[in-house]
Amino acid sequence: LNKFFSKEQTIKALMIDEGIPNYRDKALKLAKKEVKKLGIEFKEISFKERLGKTMIDVMKKTGRKKLVGSTCAFCGPFRRKLLNEGTIELHGTKMATGHNLDDEIQSITMNFFDNDLKRMSGLGPITQGTKQLIQRIKPLYLSPEKEIIAFAELNEINYFKEHCCPFSWQAKRNEFRGMLNQMENKFPGTFYSILSAFENMNPLLKDKFKEENYCQKCGSSSSGKICAACMKLKKLS
Amino acid sequence: LNKFFSKEQTIKALMIDEGIPNYRDKALKLAKKEVKKLGIEFKEISFKERLGKTMIDVMKKTGRKKLVGSTCAFCGPFRRKLLNEGTIELHGTKMATGHNLDDEIQSITMNFFDNDLKRMSGLGPITQGTKQLIQRIKPLYLSPEKEIIAFAELNEINYFKEHCCPFSWQAKRNEFRGMLNQMENKFPGTFYSILSAFENMNPLLKDKFKEENYCQKCGSSSSGKICAACMKLKKLS
Repeated sequence: LNKFFSKEQTIKALMIDEGIPNYRDKALKLAKKEVKKLGIEFKEISFKERLGKTMIDVMKKTGRKKLVGSTCAFCGPFRRKLLNEGTIELHGTKMATGHNLDDEIQSITMNFFDNDLKRMSGLGPITQGTKQLIQRIKPLYLSPEKEIIAFAELNEINYFKEHCCPFSWQAKRNEFRGMLNQMENKFPGTFYSILSAFENMNPLLKDKFKEENYCQKCGSSSSGKICAACMKLKKLS
Repeated sequence: LNKFFSKEQTIKALMIDEGIPNYRDKALKLAKKEVKKLGIEFKEISFKERLGKTMIDVMKKTGRKKLVGSTCAFCGPFRRKLLNEGTIELHGTKMATGHNLDDEIQSITMNFFDNDLKRMSGLGPITQGTKQLIQRIKPLYLSPEKEIIAFAELNEINYFKEHCCPFSWQAKRNEFRGMLNQMENKFPGTFYSILSAFENMNPLLKDKFKEENYCQKCGSSSSGKICAACMKLKKLS
């Protein structure tokens, strides 16, 4: 990213520790090494310190009450909330996430198959951003996961690759990843084609769902009356 | 259908013979028997008589020049053209087709994965209809294929079930059918959920693609300058 940024602008790294042993701890160790090599300032915040519980605590709760949803359904909103808080504390004006092409078309297709067009309208490479919600950008949005891995290998960027998140077997996304990879193999170009369909449709959807809501509990920008993180926290209490 | 129609309105049957031996000939024989049992007037027209070639002739051409597309890509537009012609000749005001829920969500998903939103906007249970293009309706649009088969069995409606069309191994739709059935098994409700997403989106798409075109060759309503049937006929000549 540094190559594309003027020297006036600085990049800082923000890392979230969800408290998943033998996974995030190891990944963070590698990430910190890389960030130090590049001379980038970084900040680390954790679920434990900010929300009072690690994902292990969450897992224990979700394990008991199956009705509250998969573990990942908690991790996502919590991480999003902390990324936003951390960026504000770093005085950031934009938050760049690592989402790639594969991630994006998985989300698009999941939202489509779920009839969740409102959520779909929030996808895309640049979110609008509000007073409370930092604008998010996805610089790797057009890059297939395979190419990013190849780039990292070629440039000797060290990243955690031993295994996936130990909770990820629960994720609906896995089924969609497998299905979409199969369709791409059978009909090459499907990934970019789905992305184009989304991009053609999204201005219409954005227009349909344009009203802005704020969470009645914590005041942060939200698609409903209560934001996803606050709803999930309530379910766990 | 008779139960839902007033006695002022009559139902007539229209059958298209694509000229696929050991398939359509047998299916038409059974269909004619059923229609006679019900006392419904019927009309049969064939690819051979109207277009000068059977699907066997088409298959021979598509087999040689692979670039022109799969056999099914010809059969569809030709059948649509003849169904329209036949309905006009029967003085029909509406054409009811047998498309079911499975057919519809396969088409929706194929169009989405192909980034063909214009074609997607033409789906749905009732088409608009124009001077040259009879309004089409899909009374079975909300009925899963399985339920229709069960209904036919329970009511002793005899239909051709020995095997699928001998050319259907070429159809892209097969891959989508398999994929969607798998997703429905893993996440029950996916079929209706995709249909709802389409129904929520379609007013926006219809508005975006509302201009009306007529084929410059045969004058029938068309999404492009030349209608699909005329384009396909040209490819075969």
